[in-house]
Amino acid sequence: MAGVFIAFEGGEGAGKSTQARRLSDTLREHGFCAVLLREPGSTELGEYLREYLVAERPVSPLAELLMFEAARAQLMAEKVIEPLEAGSIVIADRFTGSTIAYQGYGRGIDLSRIEWLNDFATGRRYPDLTVLLDVDPAIGLNRVKARQLSFGLLNVDTDRFEDADIAFHNAVRCGFRKQAVSNPTGWQTLEGNHSIEDVAAKVWELVFPMLANRSHPV
Amino acid sequence: MAGVFIAFEGGEGAGKSTQARRLSDTLREHGFCAVLLREPGSTELGEYLREYLVAERPVSPLAELLMFEAARAQLMAEKVIEPLEAGSIVIADRFTGSTIAYQGYGRGIDLSRIEWLNDFATGRRYPDLTVLLDVDPAIGLNRVKARQLSFGLLNVDTDRFEDADIAFHNAVRCGFRKQAVSNPTGWQTLEGNHSIEDVAAKVWELVFPMLANRSHPV
Repeated sequence: MAGVFIAFEGGEGAGKSTQARRLSDTLREHGFCAVLLREPGSTELGEYLREYLVAERPVSPLAELLMFEAARAQLMAEKVIEPLEAGSIVIADRFTGSTIAYQGYGRGIDLSRIEWLNDFATGRRYPDLTVLLDVDPAIGLNRVKARQLSFGLLNVDTDRFEDADIAFHNAVRCGFRKQAVSNPTGWQTLEGNHSIEDVAAKVWELVFPMLANRSHPV
Repeated sequence: MAGVFIAFEGGEGAGKSTQARRLSDTLREHGFCAVLLREPGSTELGEYLREYLVAERPVSPLAELLMFEAARAQLMAEKVIEPLEAGSIVIADRFTGSTIAYQGYGRGIDLSRIEWLNDFATGRRYPDLTVLLDVDPAIGLNRVKARQLSFGLLNVDTDRFEDADIAFHNAVRCGFRKQAVSNPTGWQTLEGNHSIEDVAAKVWELVFPMLANRSHPV
């Protein structure tokens, strides 16, 4: 039985990591084999590239895009393709939609070129479901700041995107929403400004029907 | 006055680094402004990616290709485009030809996709002259081994390509030669198994005419 590939997308502080982890836990509680991944990351190379990007070391827009795609190609080869073929449920915290939104709508790189690179890095194995957690950037960025303050991380481990201005994040949000509109079946949009419990319940409503024909969890 | 872009290509131990450095020194002695670069490398990101590749840490063929292109995009943005526009002579130790030869002919990745990526990363600013130092892989690899032994580096800093078998290196050599044949003007092939002095003299014979219209070295 082929696996199920689910991605969470959205801006900073939309709740992607929280919801991805919640879904993974719920699936495991129900006896499913769930693989939880983050982008960039989840492989030795992906974490190595992430480290450079998070540290805000010098990188041009095109090089940045190619680094994300390199991390993605490695993720597919190591952590996505085989588990899916083995019937696992693979959950990704960010995927190709983030590249379209941030590097395309945010940084202004030609969308058709990003799509070419996404096709190349993924071998066109795209998620069966992409959950867009849509949230006003002003709210999302405040959540991130609050999280950083609570961990004493402010000005220490700040993500490069979290420093960019609100116009950039509005463009990114617009990019996510346009993708959701043009992919009416594969993408589902949820309001990200509700409680964790409420959003998790809505995510489960989307995911549960995809598992219906799986009488025997693997 | 627009600058001149020169790349050295060839297999392991062909003498690329030696000849690139020699040419750079000669140009500077003649009063020209020469920028010497290596690929991947010569930028903070390029050296960071090189470190991972040289250490033979896990990387899929597609991710490896994208890492080389990321390093290249950064090199163009930081070290190639502006110096060329300012009239400098930019010398690269490896460039897009190595990607075609190693990742295409060596690893078997579709050539048209590599060409697309090369176009993307370089913005189609290709070298005005590519010098292919052609050498039998058996000779080249022995040179590399001798160099590593003399520096006490064998089994310590071994390049991933230098470990691959001779069939791989023969495929790579074939890839370099095919590019030279299909680019009769931009590429020049020199026998790499002559002395350093002899090869340097031949390189200068190729480069000198390109500087002829430069009455005032910059």
